[in-house]
Amino acid sequence: MNIVSKEVMHVGEMASGAALTVPVYRLEGQQQGPSVYIQANMHGAEVQGNAVIFQLLELLKTIELKGSITLVPYANPVACNHKNGEYTLGRFDPITGVNWNRMYHFDTEMVAPFAQANLNQSNIEIEQAFRALMLEKISQKLNHNVYGLTTGQRIAFQLQHLAHQADIVLDLHTGPISSKHLYCPEYAKASAKYFDIPHTLLIPNSFDGALDEATFCPWWQLKQAFADLGRDFPITKADEKQGEALIIKESFTVELGSQEQIDLDIAHEDALGILSYLQYQGVINSDDYHPKKMTRYCCMLEDYKALYSPMGGMVDYLAEFGQPLAPGEPLARILRMDNYGDGDPLHYISLDHQVIPILHFASASVNQGTELYKVFSKFSIL
Amino acid sequence: MNIVSKEVMHVGEMASGAALTVPVYRLEGQQQGPSVYIQANMHGAEVQGNAVIFQLLELLKTIELKGSITLVPYANPVACNHKNGEYTLGRFDPITGVNWNRMYHFDTEMVAPFAQANLNQSNIEIEQAFRALMLEKISQKLNHNVYGLTTGQRIAFQLQHLAHQADIVLDLHTGPISSKHLYCPEYAKASAKYFDIPHTLLIPNSFDGALDEATFCPWWQLKQAFADLGRDFPITKADEKQGEALIIKESFTVELGSQEQIDLDIAHEDALGILSYLQYQGVINSDDYHPKKMTRYCCMLEDYKALYSPMGGMVDYLAEFGQPLAPGEPLARILRMDNYGDGDPLHYISLDHQVIPILHFASASVNQGTELYKVFSKFSIL
Amino acid sequence: MNIVSKEVMHVGEMASGAALTVPVYRLEGQQQGPSVYIQANMHGAEVQGNAVIFQLLELLKTIELKGSITLVPYANPVACNHKNGEYTLGRFDPITGVNWNRMYHFDTEMVAPFAQANLNQSNIEIEQAFRALMLEKISQKLNHNVYGLTTGQRIAFQLQHLAHQADIVLDLHTGPISSKHLYCPEYAKASAKYFDIPHTLLIPNSFDGALDEATFCPWWQLKQAFADLGRDFPITKADEKQGEALIIKESFTVELGSQEQIDLDIAHEDALGILSYLQYQGVINSDDYHPKKMTRYCCMLEDYKALYSPMGGMVDYLAEFGQPLAPGEPLARILRMDNYGDGDPLHYISLDHQVIPILHFASASVNQGTELYKVFSKFSIL
Amino acid sequence: MNIVSKEVMHVGEMASGAALTVPVYRLEGQQQGPSVYIQANMHGAEVQGNAVIFQLLELLKTIELKGSITLVPYANPVACNHKNGEYTLGRFDPITGVNWNRMYHFDTEMVAPFAQANLNQSNIEIEQAFRALMLEKISQKLNHNVYGLTTGQRIAFQLQHLAHQADIVLDLHTGPISSKHLYCPEYAKASAKYFDIPHTLLIPNSFDGALDEATFCPWWQLKQAFADLGRDFPITKADEKQGEALIIKESFTVELGSQEQIDLDIAHEDALGILSYLQYQGVINSDDYHPKKMTRYCCMLEDYKALYSPMGGMVDYLAEFGQPLAPGEPLARILRMDNYGDGDPLHYISLDHQVIPILHFASASVNQGTELYKVFSKFSIL
Repeated sequence: MNIVSKEVMHVGEMASGAALTVPVYRLEGQQQGPSVYIQANMHGAEVQGNAVIFQLLELLKTIELKGSITLVPYANPVACNHKNGEYTLGRFDPITGVNWNRMYHFDTEMVAPFAQANLNQSNIEIEQAFRALMLEKISQKLNHNVYGLTTGQRIAFQLQHLAHQADIVLDLHTGPISSKHLYCPEYAKASAKYFDIPHTLLIPNSFDGALDEATFCPWWQLKQAFADLGRDFPITKADEKQGEALIIKESFTVELGSQEQIDLDIAHEDALGILSYLQYQGVINSDDYHPKKMTRYCCMLEDYKALYSPMGGMVDYLAEFGQPLAPGEPLARILRMDNYGDGDPLHYISLDHQVIPILHFASASVNQGTELYKVFSKFSIL
Repeated sequence: MNIVSKEVMHVGEMASGAALTVPVYRLEGQQQGPSVYIQANMHGAEVQGNAVIFQLLELLKTIELKGSITLVPYANPVACNHKNGEYTLGRFDPITGVNWNRMYHFDTEMVAPFAQANLNQSNIEIEQAFRALMLEKISQKLNHNVYGLTTGQRIAFQLQHLAHQADIVLDLHTGPISSKHLYCPEYAKASAKYFDIPHTLLIPNSFDGALDEATFCPWWQLKQAFADLGRDFPITKADEKQGEALIIKESFTVELGSQEQIDLDIAHEDALGILSYLQYQGVINSDDYHPKKMTRYCCMLEDYKALYSPMGGMVDYLAEFGQPLAPGEPLARILRMDNYGDGDPLHYISLDHQVIPILHFASASVNQGTELYKVFSKFSIL
Repeated sequence: MNIVSKEVMHVGEMASGAALTVPVYRLEGQQQGPSVYIQANMHGAEVQGNAVIFQLLELLKTIELKGSITLVPYANPVACNHKNGEYTLGRFDPITGVNWNRMYHFDTEMVAPFAQANLNQSNIEIEQAFRALMLEKISQKLNHNVYGLTTGQRIAFQLQHLAHQADIVLDLHTGPISSKHLYCPEYAKASAKYFDIPHTLLIPNSFDGALDEATFCPWWQLKQAFADLGRDFPITKADEKQGEALIIKESFTVELGSQEQIDLDIAHEDALGILSYLQYQGVINSDDYHPKKMTRYCCMLEDYKALYSPMGGMVDYLAEFGQPLAPGEPLARILRMDNYGDGDPLHYISLDHQVIPILHFASASVNQGTELYKVFSKFSIL
Repeated sequence: MNIVSKEVMHVGEMASGAALTVPVYRLEGQQQGPSVYIQANMHGAEVQGNAVIFQLLELLKTIELKGSITLVPYANPVACNHKNGEYTLGRFDPITGVNWNRMYHFDTEMVAPFAQANLNQSNIEIEQAFRALMLEKISQKLNHNVYGLTTGQRIAFQLQHLAHQADIVLDLHTGPISSKHLYCPEYAKASAKYFDIPHTLLIPNSFDGALDEATFCPWWQLKQAFADLGRDFPITKADEKQGEALIIKESFTVELGSQEQIDLDIAHEDALGILSYLQYQGVINSDDYHPKKMTRYCCMLEDYKALYSPMGGMVDYLAEFGQPLAPGEPLARILRMDNYGDGDPLHYISLDHQVIPILHFASASVNQGTELYKVFSKFSIL
């Protein structure tokens, strides 16, 4: 029976002075193994990850751990408490419009000098020094700022400080109305098969502010900087060399389905899929967790396309998620009752090429220009 | 082939001066028959009724009409365009908080004097005079007001002016996440069986501002006023007497399921159910439309209970709609990850008596005191 | 130096489990005197009252108290933390639309039987018994409810339980953009002159859910019930009889100016005006606090009129607050740039009778039907 | 008397199908002179510019024009109609969070090849060809896109297509609660003195999506590309050479004061200031309009700092706008009544260096991390 320790992290204050806090759960492994950081609910409406963390904690209690695991539900209490009418308006700071998952920090300028200065260190020494450097940078951001931090930076930097201490980072999200899909750095493509998720987006080595990028881009860029200097630096199993300490640095954004709902039974399934990946990486000492058999598709991030509504109206979403849709087949039909009798009351929306629909907008009512669907516009079998 | 005529009604203006209009569709019957008024989307997120009106219009084109039918989709363009983030915030005026479906007008004081003054008129004369009186009252409200009208009154009164011209009124709504159910005045209980809707709420003769009440309460109160004076006044088939002209006055709020979505195929089914009722009332000359066989439950309005969340948290809604739930069986479980490790992370919510769950809240995230479910707390077979 | 004691009252929980609490401050008088309850910020954007409570506490530290005083800032933390973009959306429950200040409880049915049963008790006994009865009713509401309480009821009933323990209740509010004005029960008109507030609304003996009504209506109705039974029951100084214990029951809603701002210097002035009234009522033992000289206007509640915008557009508010405006003088002009060149780009809004403008809408951008101004349409010198 | 022509541009559709349109006013000059494009209200709450356009049109009717002027009020009807409670939530797309004034287009890659290809053309030919190229790029964006455009892109690109046709662009905005200030490209610093605006922000040659940048960056980058090739290309008066046609390319964002209000009298003053600048540029044939005498401060964009609240609370904004504030002097004090009695209820906020406060947040209620003030942290006399 593993012991789950708990800390409470202060991340914000509201106008009444009420403190906003985040619970941080930790399990310590008794052997050597990669350390893991898992958070959920950075976006307010994307709550299923909290249930997945609940089920993971329940399962992990009795699994032999090698590495340590840190789990953070309700990662962004500002967003998760930001109700707007019945729904939760939690994709961005309601005052500034900035996406809560675009506020993490990575200064790419730090990589090349570090590589130069540490060219002759061992992998282990490099890993420790680079991690320490990143933690130092975040601490500086948090603590030394005359003009202060935005609401979202304060939260993001505190979470990032936890995440940088881990080798593996899972950021649990959902789409609006959505299939399950996975954001995976290109170099970790082989790992994507260990999740029970049929759609994988392969993302390149450029930082855009999200947690997964903030935790894998530094290592990937470091690996490339060393490569430019003629040295290998391993960050994933594929890089493993006999006789060398294995260093694993992988981060994924796990999209668990649709927002605004939790289902504890599905969360149990989701948790099993994560355990399958953690077993593969040697975080847990087990042979019980294996990925399900399924067709897994992947798509480059640049081929992940949003389709915007060509008109205002009310949308009957037709396309099923996850299966290739033939060219010309309708994704949706848009009702325009104001046109009944003297115009076209029904418009069918299709594309002239094959796509896989991944998610669609959360409401039938759309303005002209609202994002209707996101699709894999080019894809292959993973 | 019936001809659908179309008018456009100006109901509001936005800050930019943009006009908000409502399309009004009309089909005229060629024989004597009750006139019908059907509107949809008074609440912004409750859009399925627009699709039902679409399917009704498509079906009615080729059905022989006796009475006339007026159909108004997008009845409240202020609400239906009031997006708030991804969702539609359309249950109430966003400035005042007043429910858009509580702004209709009925001055109960007008009934008794009218009954006294028209005691010796024929039923037909009474019907015409009382209808004219109600239309006059609404016209006065619309046109003679030094201090003006609120946004919602202007819309409601214009719609009500159309509705008072009809014998039968259907106001198409939806719940948040909801089963189909019907608000039916107690006196029209027999009619509820002609809809394909398994749950009926029986509502009393008291006016609370909604369109159904605003159109049936006046007639019901008039019937009672005449009864107090010793005279019968028929307003439904059950009142029919041989040799007398039949007067039908019935109004229903038809709850079509869940908000924020349209489905044109389901809308076709919904339209068939409405045609079944219209055929029963002699509005269409047909024998093709019959109610589906189903167990129909009914509940008095006073026994329709909202269950409020005893805590903040994230809700896994467990109870299925529409079937009696045994005492003690859980309606929902509430996840409280902040309590994990040092408290109860899961709370089961149940009631100590049998209920039928009808609808639940639209989001998993709830504050303490948010309405979780609405249930029939006492019920019988209709 | 008086001692300020502090308690923290738990009034709600958010989705993350975060507790919402309200601080309750108390000063105990050392002599006999009326007890006072003062709360602020029931509506989220109406924050100036918190600053007034701050200044009151600072001033009261060194004033000799006769009665006790309870002060509750941030009375509604749900509303006061409900930011919506830059502003605070706190006039009503964002899920239900119900005004936070219409959720208090008073069951008028309890009055007549109580009067009958206590006809022969002394005034003091009656006061104690009736207060105990009201507290008991609120406790029942709070604690014995199978289906639970709404978010707002839970807060309102807890506050009301505090308020019923006092003789004098001040509920500190603000308007949108507003002059200072006072809601005062008709019977307490003489007291209105002791506040430094130039406009008084006189409100009748009917309960509509607000805190002032919830705390004065029961006593006023009790007084009337006793009058119907031929007995006097005093509730204000004007009722005082020699040789009898004086019972004071007065409640006011104090509108401190405009929402969304605090000014501690103005709050100091506001606090002095409140001390003037408290001195008059014998709550403080002092002769230092006197009302300012000013013309004070009063208006019956039924003559307090809202003027709704006859069109959508952008409003240049012209009328100054607080001074009678001659018939035909413009209150506002509405810009409609979409009409420039082919219509009227400027519309002047006036009334055909004299009014005193009291407040106006908080934004220049209005829809047709938005409340532009509230005015005293008939008024007299207090 | 100049003739004002009017067109109506269709820029969007709402869920009900209601069209959103923008009025476009044009005055044609009878002589040679720079063409001008002025728009207002791209952000929904920033409405004063509409009143300034009204006053400009009124004034321009009787002024002799050399160049032509296009004026667009209500430039973004989606934003300007997006009410959220009483206020207007119009800084960003409410679904995506993207700032409405960050959606314009400029592909910096087009500049160098164009300069190379047009090295030997005349200034006039270059101006015409480059303008044509930019218009072509925008047209392509608007018309050839399989996946469609976002709501904001559709509006921005249509406006930008108008703006690229002009030599001078004024984008009328406001701050939240704000002094008047001007965003001015560094190269046009000399022009800033012709506006009646005491604070100028000097912005560099990097494109961040705003309209001013989208219209001046291309020309400035073109000028630099030519300079790299050893050729002068004039874009402002300072560049003027005898015997050469003068080409003027200047764009400003004019911040007119505070949002959520219009004042037609102040708008008249604002319009006079704009005429002063237009006279200086030879757009109007007049000698009547001259800038007011005032101390004008300027600040580099990188020295324009936002100060974030170190705590949640309620803010009494103390610092006056527009005047240098000494080190250590308080900008604001933050009330924390929850700390009264057992903590610090008042916190003073100051900086350790001299600043000029330019604007502050629109509400007293702030979360930890809300932007309190924006200040010139380094400044000089313009």
